[in-house]
Amino acid sequence: MVITKEERMGCSVHLSGDEKSVIILDQTQLPNRQVYLTLETAEEIYDAIKVLAVRGAPAIGICAGYGMYVLALKKQTEDYAAFRKEMHEDGEYLISSRPTAVNLSWAVKRMLGVVDGNGDKTVPEIVSLLHDECYAIQDEDIEMCRRISEYGLSLVKDGDGILTHCNAGPLATSRYGTAIGPMLLGKEKGIEFHVFADETRPLLQGARLTSYELQKAGVDVTLICDNMASLVMKNGWVQACFVGCDRIAANGDFANKIGTSGVAILAKHYGIPFYTLGPTSTIDMSCPTGADIKIEQRNPDEIREMWYREPMAPADVKCYNPAFDVTDHELLTAIVTDRGIVYPPFEENLKKIFE
Amino acid sequence: MVITKEERMGCSVHLSGDEKSVIILDQTQLPNRQVYLTLETAEEIYDAIKVLAVRGAPAIGICAGYGMYVLALKKQTEDYAAFRKEMHEDGEYLISSRPTAVNLSWAVKRMLGVVDGNGDKTVPEIVSLLHDECYAIQDEDIEMCRRISEYGLSLVKDGDGILTHCNAGPLATSRYGTAIGPMLLGKEKGIEFHVFADETRPLLQGARLTSYELQKAGVDVTLICDNMASLVMKNGWVQACFVGCDRIAANGDFANKIGTSGVAILAKHYGIPFYTLGPTSTIDMSCPTGADIKIEQRNPDEIREMWYREPMAPADVKCYNPAFDVTDHELLTAIVTDRGIVYPPFEENLKKIFE
Repeated sequence: MVITKEERMGCSVHLSGDEKSVIILDQTQLPNRQVYLTLETAEEIYDAIKVLAVRGAPAIGICAGYGMYVLALKKQTEDYAAFRKEMHEDGEYLISSRPTAVNLSWAVKRMLGVVDGNGDKTVPEIVSLLHDECYAIQDEDIEMCRRISEYGLSLVKDGDGILTHCNAGPLATSRYGTAIGPMLLGKEKGIEFHVFADETRPLLQGARLTSYELQKAGVDVTLICDNMASLVMKNGWVQACFVGCDRIAANGDFANKIGTSGVAILAKHYGIPFYTLGPTSTIDMSCPTGADIKIEQRNPDEIREMWYREPMAPADVKCYNPAFDVTDHELLTAIVTDRGIVYPPFEENLKKIFE
Repeated sequence: MVITKEERMGCSVHLSGDEKSVIILDQTQLPNRQVYLTLETAEEIYDAIKVLAVRGAPAIGICAGYGMYVLALKKQTEDYAAFRKEMHEDGEYLISSRPTAVNLSWAVKRMLGVVDGNGDKTVPEIVSLLHDECYAIQDEDIEMCRRISEYGLSLVKDGDGILTHCNAGPLATSRYGTAIGPMLLGKEKGIEFHVFADETRPLLQGARLTSYELQKAGVDVTLICDNMASLVMKNGWVQACFVGCDRIAANGDFANKIGTSGVAILAKHYGIPFYTLGPTSTIDMSCPTGADIKIEQRNPDEIREMWYREPMAPADVKCYNPAFDVTDHELLTAIVTDRGIVYPPFEENLKKIFE
């Protein structure tokens, strides 16, 4: 696996040319403006994750990896214990920005593992190891996305209709993305799909990001409101559903953007295969079932405020605004990972890919 | 049945005090402004229906009834044949404003029936009959809503969670409304429900209208995005789904706001009763199944344009924007009408209520 500097710099999250800050494409401003943000402090990184300027589980992991390196670079101390303590504090702080995304804590812990495991080295030596580690996180992600895309592509054929929910494309990951990867890789190989992108309320990642990414790549994409998925499936226009995942439990239950479980139930009703695609890092074998996944609750104003320059609901109306839901593994046809396609029984077969 | 002038004037659609124009509460401006529109020409009535300033199948029917009277009043001719021809032209024009809503053509045809059936009378005499007929349409709707609300109320109990989609409340009808009727009638009787209102993209009738109406009436309402219904049901918070209907076919398939079929599939999956509530006029026995219901396609910009004062999707992205979908009768627990609750087999039992 050889990843070029150009490939890295072409991703929505990367290290700046001088390697002193994290650069992210601000996803909250798409599709209207392409604005890059420079993140240098723990607060800036925390906020970027919190407000979804960077979003998508793998992209958050990459951002956290680069972030931990940039923060390490700035430490004033040469004392290992003090350095280690500060790095752990930064790590805990970053993890608290989004509790559901397993890749965030996974990347932070991976960077802290380098700190913890090299107590015999000087602080500058550890910082140098962190430099290599954060690049490794991104390089591995690029390679993982390529593999996931290839496995996913094997499940569909030219001319198929594919429905996707939220955004699990290049913006959310590196290069091809996960759920959108097969469509982009297919396009490169001359295989055409008809993609239906759920707009994905409340934050409209499907409208703003997925349809933007697919349109830019020349893929035939039709944007629909979330509640139109049932009719589109009934019309016979969908041959497979591809969605990303934020965390997969050991039994195959998985958390993903709110609304995913509804799409899965519809797909089952209409007899359409339903796949989740994600890197192995998304599988949390320490989490037995979906019931053990904590669901983040977000600001009700995300639902209330968005109607032609004005509030679109009574100002003080009560809202329920979960960011994710959990899809039962019984609704899932297969899990597409960078190590292959995992079919039921998931509890048994997920273990095998870690062997 | 005695309906007072106050009851009529309190409805979102009514005839002006001088009985020369139709007054409607402009639903596109809710919940931010309460603006009443005065409609005097066929074009104004057509546009009000087309842009959803007046919406909800029964309200559209009432508006069309009053509209036909107001237009009749303005005819210059005393010649029956010329009068009849002009009225039929107006009727056809109004019907074309929204092809799916059966109440629209039902009300227009009812008014035209008065014209057609009284060729032996003078034009002023016919106009006088039309005056009585349009009031009868609204009065009957008020009474129908009351009956539907009572039947619906018998299906739920104090403390129940009820999920509703789109808006089938007073704004869409008269007085109590249909799907929301049991909640409002329940409130009057001291029975409390916990209502979950789907926001209902793209035009957000649930956010703007249903949550507004219920909150105003003091009913406990929680606004959710359409894609959150699955999680809310999974949480055990919903004991029944109540939705309206735009057209019910002879076999029980019914058209309602886009997304309804998805809610029905979710309800079936989670074992929750799913009811549609509507007046008998919504049942179209001449329409054998849902496959015979024409689905209106609307402007893609309704999906594309609504993101913090800016477009929220690539400007030219392809959209699919059906206004309705058809829910299969197999997903339906019962149809609640003003003549009672109809259970399966619908094909057989729907016939009985017309006997």
